[in-house]
Amino acid sequence: MIRVLISGQRVDWDEYGEPLLAALTNAGIEAEVIHERMPRAPETIDYIIYAPWSDMKDFSPFTGAKAVINLWAGVEDVVTNDSLKAPLVRMVDPGLTGGMVEWCVAHALRHHLGIDRDVCRRNAVWDQCVPPLARERPLTILGLGVLGRAVAEALSSLGFPVAGWSRSAKDVPGVTCLSGEGGLVEALRRAELLILLLPLTPATEELMNSERLALLPKGAILINPGRGPLIDDDALLAALDSGHIAHATLDVFREEPLPGDHPFWAHPGITVTPHVASATRPDTAVGVIVENIRRGESGKPLLHLVDRRLGY
Amino acid sequence: MIRVLISGQRVDWDEYGEPLLAALTNAGIEAEVIHERMPRAPETIDYIIYAPWSDMKDFSPFTGAKAVINLWAGVEDVVTNDSLKAPLVRMVDPGLTGGMVEWCVAHALRHHLGIDRDVCRRNAVWDQCVPPLARERPLTILGLGVLGRAVAEALSSLGFPVAGWSRSAKDVPGVTCLSGEGGLVEALRRAELLILLLPLTPATEELMNSERLALLPKGAILINPGRGPLIDDDALLAALDSGHIAHATLDVFREEPLPGDHPFWAHPGITVTPHVASATRPDTAVGVIVENIRRGESGKPLLHLVDRRLGY
Repeated sequence: MIRVLISGQRVDWDEYGEPLLAALTNAGIEAEVIHERMPRAPETIDYIIYAPWSDMKDFSPFTGAKAVINLWAGVEDVVTNDSLKAPLVRMVDPGLTGGMVEWCVAHALRHHLGIDRDVCRRNAVWDQCVPPLARERPLTILGLGVLGRAVAEALSSLGFPVAGWSRSAKDVPGVTCLSGEGGLVEALRRAELLILLLPLTPATEELMNSERLALLPKGAILINPGRGPLIDDDALLAALDSGHIAHATLDVFREEPLPGDHPFWAHPGITVTPHVASATRPDTAVGVIVENIRRGESGKPLLHLVDRRLGY
Repeated sequence: MIRVLISGQRVDWDEYGEPLLAALTNAGIEAEVIHERMPRAPETIDYIIYAPWSDMKDFSPFTGAKAVINLWAGVEDVVTNDSLKAPLVRMVDPGLTGGMVEWCVAHALRHHLGIDRDVCRRNAVWDQCVPPLARERPLTILGLGVLGRAVAEALSSLGFPVAGWSRSAKDVPGVTCLSGEGGLVEALRRAELLILLLPLTPATEELMNSERLALLPKGAILINPGRGPLIDDDALLAALDSGHIAHATLDVFREEPLPGDHPFWAHPGITVTPHVASATRPDTAVGVIVENIRRGESGKPLLHLVDRRLGY
């Protein structure tokens, strides 16, 4: 009998409580799934499911925890927590990946084809203008993790010449894979469309500063479904105002919800989407959680283990 | 030495004249490529490239024509012309197909994810709402020709459960292929997103009348990059006004350009795109034209021959 704590908001309990217990039972794992307001001794907890915006900041009472399983792909809120001694795993969920692919393909094609002109048209203007084909629109993805790779493959199969950049060298069929600082310059210089799917770490914070924004070709489009602080907000606003960047579609922000008086809301060159690019989906994620608990119980290596030193 | 006439507008000559001559020469075919204002005897013309909005309505003087090569996919303007005795071929152009796939995927994802809400947002509202995954959004394509099939495959690979309907039974891997009148009812009943890619023939004109629109599930989205008269305009407006159809994105119209006083322009449930879903691309189409001329000259069967009886 193991004890699994879901540490998060009420909505996380509602979405994950019953499905997780059912999936553990189906997998032959006898378990109790609890939330934080259920009175159990912290040292008796075997696994912690850590949801975004969890209030838990002190892991030290959980002396028996075999793993902390992050419910989202990004671990920046927990990875630097010194009270956490148990292994930390991030979420790799086919549902989350699929949703991210849909959102990125949708917004890449929206900008590529100039669809906003049609969606926002207020007058009867037959302004026929056929856009170039995707194969004539170089696109770069920063980050070639599970999400970046899936998005790269989908956009490549639609015809875009896709380059991907990552810290360490990667190999993705059909994608020009670049790495290192020199690779970053090359990746940005060609990017008529740029998609940010990097983890947030000290090395990636404000990666898109004014110098790197200036490397993009004039009229480039920036799409950020990764993490808000990857961008220097003021540098982006300046690049939009100068016309160097034509448009930015942003799903993530330094502060969320994005404050009502933030200049991003009103800027005509920015589309704000309210952190909906993708979400972990209970029906697929529960299987991933159960697999990691099964591995933990049978002494096998955990999947998607975070490298605390690298921060992802 | 053969003689090829480009019958169309000035723009067609500008786009196709030189590239076509160059491609014929490259293929070892000695040719003269001319336009209609060049004085040549009609009976000396071997091939007619027939562009949209060509003024040519009487083919009878072209007694030596070995084929009429339509420059677009739709042949409804020429197929019923009794003065045309030469074989008629329609355009199957990889560039045209690729552009159509891009446009259809873009608008399917746009509606699936509800992107207009973000694009048109005027106030600072953080209205977070994660859409379902594509796999939970049944989508139907009417028409499984070259274009319908390519669009079906692209949307299927993004996860949509895709059904395709065509007059005669087809087989497309990963796509639920339906045919006949019973198949049409089934195809429409499941279609949360419906894409029209049928040719315009007497059998398909106003196929989407009020009875068939009523078969769609409430809140369905209609996307028409096929031909305007596939839809009964008044029935569509009524279905939008009643809320049965949530939105229609229309690229093609009974009269083009769409007249300024047409109710489609101002209707909040309709997005008008000015017949830009796709166009034949000279750089890829020229190769297709040359291949058919090469076949014509060597007595081989022409590609993409139109069945004049069926109308496509």
